[in-house]
Amino acid sequence: MKHKIFIVGMGPGREDMMTRQALQALEQSDVIIGYTVYMDLLGERFAGKERMSTPMRQEEKRCRLCFQEAGKGKQVALICSGDAGIYGMASLMYEIGKEYPDTELQVIPGITAASSGAAILGAPINHDFCVISLSDLLTPWEKIEKRLAAAAEGDFAIVIYNPSSHKRKDYLKRACDILLGILEEERCCGYVENIGREGMKTQICTLKELREREVNMFTTVFIGNSGSEYIDGKLITKRGYQIERDTGICGNNRGETTV
Amino acid sequence: MKHKIFIVGMGPGREDMMTRQALQALEQSDVIIGYTVYMDLLGERFAGKERMSTPMRQEEKRCRLCFQEAGKGKQVALICSGDAGIYGMASLMYEIGKEYPDTELQVIPGITAASSGAAILGAPINHDFCVISLSDLLTPWEKIEKRLAAAAEGDFAIVIYNPSSHKRKDYLKRACDILLGILEEERCCGYVENIGREGMKTQICTLKELREREVNMFTTVFIGNSGSEYIDGKLITKRGYQIERDTGICGNNRGETTV
Repeated sequence: MKHKIFIVGMGPGREDMMTRQALQALEQSDVIIGYTVYMDLLGERFAGKERMSTPMRQEEKRCRLCFQEAGKGKQVALICSGDAGIYGMASLMYEIGKEYPDTELQVIPGITAASSGAAILGAPINHDFCVISLSDLLTPWEKIEKRLAAAAEGDFAIVIYNPSSHKRKDYLKRACDILLGILEEERCCGYVENIGREGMKTQICTLKELREREVNMFTTVFIGNSGSEYIDGKLITKRGYQIERDTGICGNNRGETTV
Repeated sequence: MKHKIFIVGMGPGREDMMTRQALQALEQSDVIIGYTVYMDLLGERFAGKERMSTPMRQEEKRCRLCFQEAGKGKQVALICSGDAGIYGMASLMYEIGKEYPDTELQVIPGITAASSGAAILGAPINHDFCVISLSDLLTPWEKIEKRLAAAAEGDFAIVIYNPSSHKRKDYLKRACDILLGILEEERCCGYVENIGREGMKTQICTLKELREREVNMFTTVFIGNSGSEYIDGKLITKRGYQIERDTGICGNNRGETTV
C-alpha cells in the first residue's frame, strides 16, 4: 500500500479558523511535523501526537523527515501556517517526492493571510488582486520589484507577505518607493499584525504613510486598487458596482448603481 | 445595542472545508441569507434556520435584505461561496452599511477557489500570484485584458475565476490569446471543475491547449509562472529553491539546491 502524507494548512493559528478536514488529518496522524512556532500554536489538542521539527530555513530537511517517517509506516502530517500551497511547503514536498514514488501527497488547504487579514481590514481584495512576498531569500529582489511594478500598472489590489524581517528592515519602504512611482500618494492601504492571534494590531493609512511605518515579519500589508476607499475605518475595494474613480469608466453595464 | 451581521465564507461548499468559526456563526444566526445554489450546499445541518434568498444578480437587494432583517433584531448570516471577501459580498455590504450605522459587520473568511483548486492540482500558486475574474458584468473587458497582460509581464502564477458563462463562452480563449502574446505556448496550466463537490474534474495542459478547452462557470483555471512544471501529473510552482528556467538567475542565494 502507498504511504500518504497530509500537507496541512492551519490558517492563522487559531483552531476555530482551521477546517474540519485539516483537524481530522491531524487527528488521523501519528506524527505531526512542522516549524516549532506553528507547532506551539496547535496547543493541547494534539499533545498526545509525536511531534518533530527542524529549525527555520531547514525546510528541505523538514520535508525529507516527512518522507522518512512515512516510510516507517507512520501516518505523517506536515503543518504550515496559512495555506500549505501559498508560500508553504507543498511545492517542495512534490519536488522531493520524486524520490519517494511509494508516497502519495494530499494538500489540505487553509485560510491564507490574504483572506484572514482582509476579513479584519474590511474588504480590501474584493476584486482582482496580486499576492507578492518581499522575501528575497528565494527570489532575486529585481524580480520582486518587477512584480510590484506590474501589479501597480495592472491596477490590482496588492497583498504583501513577509514585508520585513531582522535582516530586511527597509524592504517595505523600498517596495513603497516602487509603487509610489506609479500610484498616487493617497492610495488607500492597511495592514494587520498577528492576524487572529494575541496582540493583533490593525491600521489603515495612505501609501505615503505606509512607506514610513515599521512593520514586522508577522504583518500582512494590503494596498487598494484605484477604486478602494475607507468606509467607517475599514479598507474597501469595490466589486465594480460603481463608477471607477480614476478612469471614469462605468464598471457596471447593467445600469445598476449602489446608492 | 448594535446589530451585527456575519458575512460568512463557506469555502467550496463542503461542510468539512468550512472553519468552525464559520459554522458557529451560522449556528448562532436566526436567518441565513444567500444565493440559493450555496444555500442548498449547506444541506440538512441548518434546516431549522429561517432562510432567505434573492435570484442571481440581485446582489444589492440581497444585501439590503440582510440589514432589514438585522433591524428587526434577528441575528443574520449572509453566506458566500469561497471567501466572502474575494469576489464575494463583503465590499457591497460595507458600502450599503453606510446607511445602517446601527449595524456592525463581521467578515468570516473561507477557503477561496484559488486555495482549494490549488490543493487539488498540486501546488500551482506556491509563489507570487494574481487572481483575475473574466466576468465583465462589473468590470470593463479592456481592464481585464490589461490585468492579464500585467500578470504575464510580471511572471506571476495566475488564477482565473469565472472563465466562462452562457453569455461569455469564448472569454477564456480571448484571455489565452492575450497571454499567448507574452508567454510561451508550452506554459504549464491546469484547471479544476466543481472543486470539492460531486463531479469534480481536474486537467493539466499547456497554455496553447487551454485555449481550445471548453470550461464552465464552475471552473477555476491556473496558469503557472516561468518556473512551473508538471510533477507526476500535478502542476507545481516552485518557491524558488532551484535555478529559474527562463531567466538563468539563481533564485536561491543560500547555496542550497533541491536534489
